[in-house]
Amino acid sequence: MITLTSDFGYEDPYAAEMKGVILTINPNANIIDITHGVEKFNIRMGAFMLASAAPYFLRGTVHLAVVDPSVGTERRAILVQTKQGFFVGPDNGILMLAAQYQDIESAYELTNPKFMLSKVSYTFHGRDVFAPAAAHLDIGVKPSEFGPEIDDLVVPEFASVKRKNDSLIGEVLHVDGFGNLITNISPREIGQSKRVDIKLQNLSQNLAFVKTYALAKPQQPLALIGSHGFLEIALNQGSAAAKFHAVAGDRIEVLPT
Amino acid sequence: MITLTSDFGYEDPYAAEMKGVILTINPNANIIDITHGVEKFNIRMGAFMLASAAPYFLRGTVHLAVVDPSVGTERRAILVQTKQGFFVGPDNGILMLAAQYQDIESAYELTNPKFMLSKVSYTFHGRDVFAPAAAHLDIGVKPSEFGPEIDDLVVPEFASVKRKNDSLIGEVLHVDGFGNLITNISPREIGQSKRVDIKLQNLSQNLAFVKTYALAKPQQPLALIGSHGFLEIALNQGSAAAKFHAVAGDRIEVLPT
Amino acid sequence: MITLTSDFGYEDPYAAEMKGVILTINPNANIIDITHGVEKFNIRMGAFMLASAAPYFLRGTVHLAVVDPSVGTERRAILVQTKQGFFVGPDNGILMLAAQYQDIESAYELTNPKFMLSKVSYTFHGRDVFAPAAAHLDIGVKPSEFGPEIDDLVVPEFASVKRKNDSLIGEVLHVDGFGNLITNISPREIGQSKRVDIKLQNLSQNLAFVKTYALAKPQQPLALIGSHGFLEIALNQGSAAAKFHAVAGDRIEVLPT
Repeated sequence: MITLTSDFGYEDPYAAEMKGVILTINPNANIIDITHGVEKFNIRMGAFMLASAAPYFLRGTVHLAVVDPSVGTERRAILVQTKQGFFVGPDNGILMLAAQYQDIESAYELTNPKFMLSKVSYTFHGRDVFAPAAAHLDIGVKPSEFGPEIDDLVVPEFASVKRKNDSLIGEVLHVDGFGNLITNISPREIGQSKRVDIKLQNLSQNLAFVKTYALAKPQQPLALIGSHGFLEIALNQGSAAAKFHAVAGDRIEVLPT
Repeated sequence: MITLTSDFGYEDPYAAEMKGVILTINPNANIIDITHGVEKFNIRMGAFMLASAAPYFLRGTVHLAVVDPSVGTERRAILVQTKQGFFVGPDNGILMLAAQYQDIESAYELTNPKFMLSKVSYTFHGRDVFAPAAAHLDIGVKPSEFGPEIDDLVVPEFASVKRKNDSLIGEVLHVDGFGNLITNISPREIGQSKRVDIKLQNLSQNLAFVKTYALAKPQQPLALIGSHGFLEIALNQGSAAAKFHAVAGDRIEVLPT
Repeated sequence: MITLTSDFGYEDPYAAEMKGVILTINPNANIIDITHGVEKFNIRMGAFMLASAAPYFLRGTVHLAVVDPSVGTERRAILVQTKQGFFVGPDNGILMLAAQYQDIESAYELTNPKFMLSKVSYTFHGRDVFAPAAAHLDIGVKPSEFGPEIDDLVVPEFASVKRKNDSLIGEVLHVDGFGNLITNISPREIGQSKRVDIKLQNLSQNLAFVKTYALAKPQQPLALIGSHGFLEIALNQGSAAAKFHAVAGDRIEVLPT
C-alpha cells in the first residue's frame, strides 16, 4: 500500500503521472491519496497532513510525500524506515513529523539510478525519483539498496511547545477546512482543566474546554481536543480562523484555569 | 465495494484517515469517492449526491456518507440495509433519499464497540465509527451484529413527496450550475404525462414534459427527467432558477395533466 | 487499467457515476483519475492533461476523456486504438494530442447499443456511452465490435509551431497550478541555447535557459524544458502567468540567442 501527499492540486496531471509510474512498476499497487491540496511550497502543512493520516494505515505502508520547493538543487532525496513503515520524499522536513511519531529506525539517500526513471527531469522528482522508489519499496526492495545510509536528516522546527510560568506557548499548526485552529499542544499538557485562557492575535479570551463542538452555542468559541489528538480552538458551526483572524504559524498562549 | 460521500473537502486528510481505517480492517476493500465536496453541514446536498450516484453501483455496495453537524451529541449512528446494499452514517437524513429508492429492509443503531476504533473521538465519527462499520459490513459481518434494530429513522423533509388530491408536493433539492431546478420527485410519480402544471414561488405554469432541453424553444420553461433520475424544471438556454426566483429547499407542487 | 479525464469537477457525483458503471461491468477494473479539474468545456486543456499523463501508463491502458460541450448533438462518440493503448471519448479533438503521440492504428465510432447503458440520456454520455465502452474494452472486447471503422477523426489545431526568420511562433498550451506557462515548443527546436528572447503579451524579455527553477533568483523569470517535455516560461517560487498576464492560448515568440 502506498499513500500520496503533495501540493500538486487536483487540476494538473502530476499526481496521475506518479500513479502511472508506480502502476507500471507494480500493477497491483494499492494507491491512496492523503491529499494533493497542500498549499504550494508549504512544507509544514504537508508534514501535518501526513502526520495526521499516517497512523491510520497498515504496518508496512509506504508514504510518499512531495512538497519540494528546492527540487533539482542539492537537497537530498531520502527514504526513512520506521517501526511502522516507510517514508519517501525530499529531505526538507516534510516526512519528519510523521516519521518521528513512528520511531525512525534508519534512513537512506536515494542515489541508485536503478530505482529511478531512466531519464530524471530537473523539475519533477515526485514522478522520476520518489514514485519509482515507493513502488520498488512496495514490492520488497530493501531500503539499503537505494543508496547510502544517512544520519543527518533535516529536522523541522515546528511542534515544540514552551512553558512560561503556568502558560503553554505553542503555535497554530494548521487551519482545517472548517476554520478550526489546530495547535501543537497535546492533551497531557492541558490536564483536566475545565476552562483555558488563550491569547491569540492580540485577543485574550477564556474558553470552555469541552468534549465536542456541539456542546457550545452556535458561533461560540471553545477549546477541545480534536480528532488529531491536539488542542483545537473552534467555533460551533463557525470558523475560529475568521473569528480570531488567525493563520497557521500564529503564536498561541494557553493557560489552563 | 465501499463508496464515500462527505463534506471533508480535498485539502484535509480526513477522507484519507477513513480510508486508512477501512483498509486496515480489509486491505482488499475497493473504495470509491462519490464526492468530498459537499458544502459544509449541508445534509440535503450530501443526500442528493449520494442518491444520484448510488444507483450506478453493484448490488452489495456499502455506501458511507458523513455530513454530521451534530457529531458527538445524542444523534444516533446508523446502518440501513436495502434490497441493493448498505448505507452507513449519522441518523440525520443524509442516507434516506438514496436508501428509500432502494427499498429499506431494516435498520440498526451502531452501538457495538467491537466494530468501532478502540478509542472513539467526540468529533470524528466518520473515522472512528462509520469507517470501521463500513469495512466490517464489506467483509460480511451481519447487520444485526452492530446493534439493536430500530424503526424510527429520521426522515428529512426532502426525502418525502406528499400527495394532495392529484398533485405531488415536493421540493427543489438542488440548483445546478445552469440554473436547472432538480426536484425530489421521481419519474414513477409523474407517469406518462405529456404536460405538467407546476406551482413554484407564487408562479403557476403549465409546462411541456419533454425528453431533452433542446426540444423547447429558447428561454422556454420545460419539465424533464434529468440525468440524475429526478424531475427537473429547466429553461432551454436559460436559468429556471432566475425565472422562478427559486432556490434549493423551495416547495414545488406538480400536477400531471 | 482505465484512466479518467473530465471537466466534471470534484463537487458533483458525475465522475463517481462513471466509476459505478465501469465497476458494475468489471468489478476488478483499476480506475485512476488523471483529473476532473479541466475547465468546463475547455477541450484543449483536457487534451493537454491527457497527453501529459498518458505516456506514464502501462501498455493496454484505456484512457477515457470527456469534455463534451456538444453532448446530445451529431458529434460522434469514438474509440481510438494506438500502439500503446485505447482512447475513448467524443470526437472533438480531446483525444487526439495524446493519441497521435502513441501512433494511431485505427478508430471506430461507438454505435453498438450492446456496449452502452440500456437507457442512454441526452446529457451524460460520459456515464451512458463512454464508461461502458471503456469497461468493455478493458475486459477484452475487440475495438471493431463497437461500431464502424472511421478515418476522418476531428484533429485539433493546437500544437503547430511556425518559424519566422530565426524565431519560433507557438502558443501557451497550458498554465499549470504553479503559474508556469507551458508552450507547444519542443526542446529540439530550441537546441543548445543558453538564453532566449521571448515576446509574450507585449512584453519582450531575454531569459536564461536553465535546467531547473531554483537556478534563478526567487521571483526571477526563466525558460526551461519542463517535466512535460515542452518549453516552459516560469518564475522561481512565483507565477509567470501573473508576471506576464498570460493565459492559455496566448501567442509566444521565441528567439534562441
